[in-house]
Amino acid sequence: MTRSRTPEGTRGRILETAERMFAEHGVFSVSNRQISDEAGLGNNTAVSYHFGSKAELVRAIYLRHSAPMEVLREKALDEHAGSTDLRDWLGCVVRPFTGHLASLGRNSWYARFAAQLTTEPKLRELGLVDVGQTSLQRTITAALHRCLPDLAPAVRAERDEMARTLIVHMCARREADLPEDSAEMWDATATGLVDALAGLYLAPATFKSIN
Amino acid sequence: MTRSRTPEGTRGRILETAERMFAEHGVFSVSNRQISDEAGLGNNTAVSYHFGSKAELVRAIYLRHSAPMEVLREKALDEHAGSTDLRDWLGCVVRPFTGHLASLGRNSWYARFAAQLTTEPKLRELGLVDVGQTSLQRTITAALHRCLPDLAPAVRAERDEMARTLIVHMCARREADLPEDSAEMWDATATGLVDALAGLYLAPATFKSIN
Repeated sequence: MTRSRTPEGTRGRILETAERMFAEHGVFSVSNRQISDEAGLGNNTAVSYHFGSKAELVRAIYLRHSAPMEVLREKALDEHAGSTDLRDWLGCVVRPFTGHLASLGRNSWYARFAAQLTTEPKLRELGLVDVGQTSLQRTITAALHRCLPDLAPAVRAERDEMARTLIVHMCARREADLPEDSAEMWDATATGLVDALAGLYLAPATFKSIN
Repeated sequence: MTRSRTPEGTRGRILETAERMFAEHGVFSVSNRQISDEAGLGNNTAVSYHFGSKAELVRAIYLRHSAPMEVLREKALDEHAGSTDLRDWLGCVVRPFTGHLASLGRNSWYARFAAQLTTEPKLRELGLVDVGQTSLQRTITAALHRCLPDLAPAVRAERDEMARTLIVHMCARREADLPEDSAEMWDATATGLVDALAGLYLAPATFKSIN
């Protein structure tokens, strides 16, 4: 790889290196200095110079992936507009994520990074996942909910949380053990998730006194 | 709290402190020295002295919780012996975990620790979760599988993995936001999981050319 000396090249190299190290070792196990060293920058203040805090670096990695996923989401939404089939809307939830991961080929670290964003208390406080749903995501969720008119709102909210949790953590597991043909694996993973989540959402709920 | 000066007291204090710090900050973000400091031991080689490596410390925390869960598992198995109801066996999978967490009251850190055991590559290598199923767990899994005679083995294995992933990560999320009446919350969480997992396991599977 030719190493660019432009600010944009350095910034990109930091983002790629940080994402890989965060995925493999955990966001809080990696210091800005280790990222600079691994990126071969020689200057161990480079990360701070380009990104300020670790929170800003995490946010920049997130944004780099959220843009292409929004494009896939928009396509999926166009394709299924007007559908009342739960599986179509589950596909709109799952496939922009797995499709984006497939596009990364062997250089896929984002599922493990995203899993940490939804799990680590300090990262959840950044409000990037869960809370920060885009307007396309809200449209998809609303359409999905319209397929489930009989589900009590509290149960529906619980199952939304289960679905998000399952998608991100299953993808993180698959990404950690990536096969040669990752595109086929991601497609099969998406199909398996849509099947399972259709059952999860449609399952009868036991009456609970709380919620 | 009276601080015991016996070796057993020191060992227990290290275990409790380490578990809480691992849950809150991540197993790889906490050093043995920080654990010694936080446990008020003054001697920053105490952790190494009592446990050797961090892997041994992680194993000791795991074993401290696996024993009481096995007791709950045995009771659940006795209660449902001979049942052919999928929900009974899902209860045997879910409730020994949520029941044990409920028994910990406000001092519950284990779900977040267990979530890391199933997620972190370096911790998964220890083979404590996933791989290291006890014979009671294998008996429960076999009984659960007998309720699903029409599910292809590859799909069943995928859904077993989804179920394990969902249980541990949902419990980790609930534990991080523990209400005053945690026993009632854990019972409701278990009911919600059994409902959702019954749907997940029973959902029709799309034919896939791979697997």
